[in-house]
Amino acid sequence: ENMNDLMEQKDTLTQKLEETELRSRVLEEQLVGAEQRLEENQEEQENFRKSLRTLLELLDGKIFELTELRDTLARLIEEAS
Amino acid sequence: ENMNDLMEQKDTLTQKLEETELRSRVLEEQLVGAEQRLEENQEEQENFRKSLRTLLELLDGKIFELTELRDTLARLIEEAS
Amino acid sequence: ENMNDLMEQKDTLTQKLEETELRSRVLEEQLVGAEQRLEENQEEQENFRKSLRTLLELLDGKIFELTELRDTLARLIEEAS
Amino acid sequence: ENMNDLMEQKDTLTQKLEETELRSRVLEEQLVGAEQRLEENQEEQENFRKSLRTLLELLDGKIFELTELRDTLARLIEEAS
Repeated sequence: ENMNDLMEQKDTLTQKLEETELRSRVLEEQLVGAEQRLEENQEEQENFRKSLRTLLELLDGKIFELTELRDTLARLIEEAS
Repeated sequence: ENMNDLMEQKDTLTQKLEETELRSRVLEEQLVGAEQRLEENQEEQENFRKSLRTLLELLDGKIFELTELRDTLARLIEEAS
Repeated sequence: ENMNDLMEQKDTLTQKLEETELRSRVLEEQLVGAEQRLEENQEEQENFRKSLRTLLELLDGKIFELTELRDTLARLIEEAS
Repeated sequence: ENMNDLMEQKDTLTQKLEETELRSRVLEEQLVGAEQRLEENQEEQENFRKSLRTLLELLDGKIFELTELRDTLARLIEEAS
């Protein structure tokens, strides 16, 4: 090979390298973005479950109060006999 | 006492007896009526209590179904973790 | 009729009158008793219904609270979308 | 520059290019993985919400049945008056 060929190949490689490095940076940003979204999803999911657990406790409270109510009704019926 | 006095007393007694017998019959009817009303009340009361017991069973059923519902919610929350 | 017959009839009437007056008093007491029991029943019945109305209000409260709970669940589900 | 320098630079560039292309492929795989996980999360989330909507319908049903029950109780109380 002569000098001109080598210089041409070097230029080609330099350009490819710049393109590949750019592509890498873009992919890296996209990956960081995707991982952030995953983390936000996890957090939203956990908050959603926390809210649902609170609601579950409320529901347990209502069921307990309804049970007390049915006990009162049972007592009233028997006392009226 | 002479005959006239005796006959007068007998008439008075006969009249009083008729009045008292009438009063007795009236009281007897009123008593029968009151006892019938008491019996009807008892029956209505017993029917009322029967209906309430049926309602109590329905309420028990609803409480059971709500408990199953809360169990399903609890399971869904945990499975989503 | 002679004096003796009249006196005998008067005695018989007097005795019958005493028996019928006694019977009347007994019936009167029984009637008072029956009417008292009717009145007590009415009162017990009214108290029973008052207690049931209070229970009905409690049940209305529970139903309202369950409705708020279902609204919260509906909102959480939609907000999580 | 002489031929040897140029050949050395070309070798260095070639190596860097291979490393950067490798890095790009790794990042691409990681990105595909992260996006798959995001998609799976979305699907799980949607299924979770579907299950919750079904549960919400069940709860609506229970509330409706409890309302019918309280109406029956109200009617029984008034009919007993």
